[in-house]
Amino acid sequence: MENHKDSLKELEQIAKNAEKKTKIKVSPKDVEDIISAVKTTGNFWQIVNFSQKPIPVVAETIRLLKKSGYIDFENENIKVLEKFEKKFDYIPKFMSELICPECQGRGINIKAIGIYEEFFEIQKNRPKPIQEYDQGNITPDSTIARVSMMRLRGDIAKKKIIVLGDDDLVGIALALTELPEEVVVLDIDKRLIDFTNEVAQSKGLKLKAEVFDLRKPLPREFNRRFDVFVTDPPEAKKAFETFIQKSIWCLKGVGSVGYIGMTLIDSSLYKWSELQKIILSSGAVITDIIRDFNKYENWDYHQNTLAWKIAPVKSPANTIWYVSVMVRIQIVRKPVAKNTLMKDKDIYIDTESTTT
Amino acid sequence: MENHKDSLKELEQIAKNAEKKTKIKVSPKDVEDIISAVKTTGNFWQIVNFSQKPIPVVAETIRLLKKSGYIDFENENIKVLEKFEKKFDYIPKFMSELICPECQGRGINIKAIGIYEEFFEIQKNRPKPIQEYDQGNITPDSTIARVSMMRLRGDIAKKKIIVLGDDDLVGIALALTELPEEVVVLDIDKRLIDFTNEVAQSKGLKLKAEVFDLRKPLPREFNRRFDVFVTDPPEAKKAFETFIQKSIWCLKGVGSVGYIGMTLIDSSLYKWSELQKIILSSGAVITDIIRDFNKYENWDYHQNTLAWKIAPVKSPANTIWYVSVMVRIQIVRKPVAKNTLMKDKDIYIDTESTTT
Repeated sequence: MENHKDSLKELEQIAKNAEKKTKIKVSPKDVEDIISAVKTTGNFWQIVNFSQKPIPVVAETIRLLKKSGYIDFENENIKVLEKFEKKFDYIPKFMSELICPECQGRGINIKAIGIYEEFFEIQKNRPKPIQEYDQGNITPDSTIARVSMMRLRGDIAKKKIIVLGDDDLVGIALALTELPEEVVVLDIDKRLIDFTNEVAQSKGLKLKAEVFDLRKPLPREFNRRFDVFVTDPPEAKKAFETFIQKSIWCLKGVGSVGYIGMTLIDSSLYKWSELQKIILSSGAVITDIIRDFNKYENWDYHQNTLAWKIAPVKSPANTIWYVSVMVRIQIVRKPVAKNTLMKDKDIYIDTESTTT
Repeated sequence: MENHKDSLKELEQIAKNAEKKTKIKVSPKDVEDIISAVKTTGNFWQIVNFSQKPIPVVAETIRLLKKSGYIDFENENIKVLEKFEKKFDYIPKFMSELICPECQGRGINIKAIGIYEEFFEIQKNRPKPIQEYDQGNITPDSTIARVSMMRLRGDIAKKKIIVLGDDDLVGIALALTELPEEVVVLDIDKRLIDFTNEVAQSKGLKLKAEVFDLRKPLPREFNRRFDVFVTDPPEAKKAFETFIQKSIWCLKGVGSVGYIGMTLIDSSLYKWSELQKIILSSGAVITDIIRDFNKYENWDYHQNTLAWKIAPVKSPANTIWYVSVMVRIQIVRKPVAKNTLMKDKDIYIDTESTTT
């Protein structure tokens, strides 16, 4: 009992120090979640995966744990020392067995929609993610899960859908179902757009892709045209707001829907609360928040990112570790929707995003 | 195409009329979801289940569809007529195959926590739900799923947990894991409290249950005492606010957690957006929204509820149809927490809640 109080105090102290250093809000619960992950794996990237905390916070917490003699580094992994076990004995391991092994926690059966095999073959030839465009793509399973969720919620059949940024080939998967009225894909990367249009042509899909820099205002004719948008917005507060309001600007109005990929690896829960306020004050309600939904394939330029640089120990990233949350929103009142230019300083003025 | 525009107009008209009659916000998308459900099943309660709309809205929409000659009633079920198929041919059936059959859409593996069999035996002797207390309990699977989710998010071990209202025996299931520091159950029903305390005593569980009318202010000594609360609050806006703020008043502060059961059967999405604003402005963030998580066993007094009364056709309710959404919140800033009396008029002044 005394021991427990002691370790709670220690958590508070670490949280305070980590917050001071990273300038990101850190609670004792955040530190506890990181310690639980450290008990479960020695691999830095898997600690990020299990704890779902911003990378600077995980990195700084681990540095502080090492400084206090709780852990050590060994062969690019983290090794727990005896002092650690004593102090934090009450914190249990992360129990990944509690995640449904069949659907990997998404709650979605990806087999029923009937496009899995075809999509899997198509995506083998996709262009590789490049750092210039902050790219990274989710696994084919994740793309099909996203489209299956959209079908489950009645958001595909006869719908006009816009995909704002499409590293994940969601546009192709949607069109393969042959259900949408219209699918429009915008992306800055000409390679992705060419690939999407080639697939559309060879398969005879209802799908149009165009090169477009999404920082710019969208074409006038997109205003109130679509039933559904799909996007993975930047997570710096001001950039998120501009991006979401532009996406909502494309929607017809009450009853229209948005699918938003959001992370807890490039955002703190504190920032999330700000981003959720933006969603609600834009006239939408949040209908679903499904954690660990989108699983990212590891990308070639990982060792050139800020995330790699600040990692206190350079563990290999050879299994999936970066995941994102599937958030579905629906418009419930006259939306606040602006189609404005996003300034670069709004995107990058954020201490929490490190993987781009 | 012309046909599609026509049916969109029809959806708009039905939405408008249903909204006028029920005084609940109804969008064309809501009507579309109900029509999709009508295509899938003739049973009124399953239509509510698949469409996830407030019962008065489903009832009125079905009345309007009948009035316009789209559907008819046959043997207490709903039968789709030819005119319906023509007008709404583009709306596909609800595809329940897309829900993971293993975890029923929860994303949780209920087998891993290791208390399933024991809990299943215990709960067989639970007191039956009675209307006086608006009771209804979720399936044992759902209770175990809830506790498993809590374990997955690190919200049980060494935590002080308060369960505000416990038809679902969450307190017993939590204590069976032997992980919490403290579990306190409050409920107005003496039968439930006696049952819980008897189980606690015979099994030697760390679990205290007390008879308490949750409309009243909570005991002073609960202020900032708990790490986690679990509750299924009333969903009338004012009552929800009082209830959530009281629950948060029990929490220690930043990093503390709440599990809230919410429905789309006694609430519209429009009201949900108001309830979500209450959560955010109380100092919390929403970390999870998992639909169809809690599945309710059918209750004996169903035929005495307002829901039964307003059902346009008295279909049998012999399979699970009432489900609720699992919402997890976490405190991210100094909370707004008040421990106030809830007035009865605040609970019942709501057109959307009909199942109590």
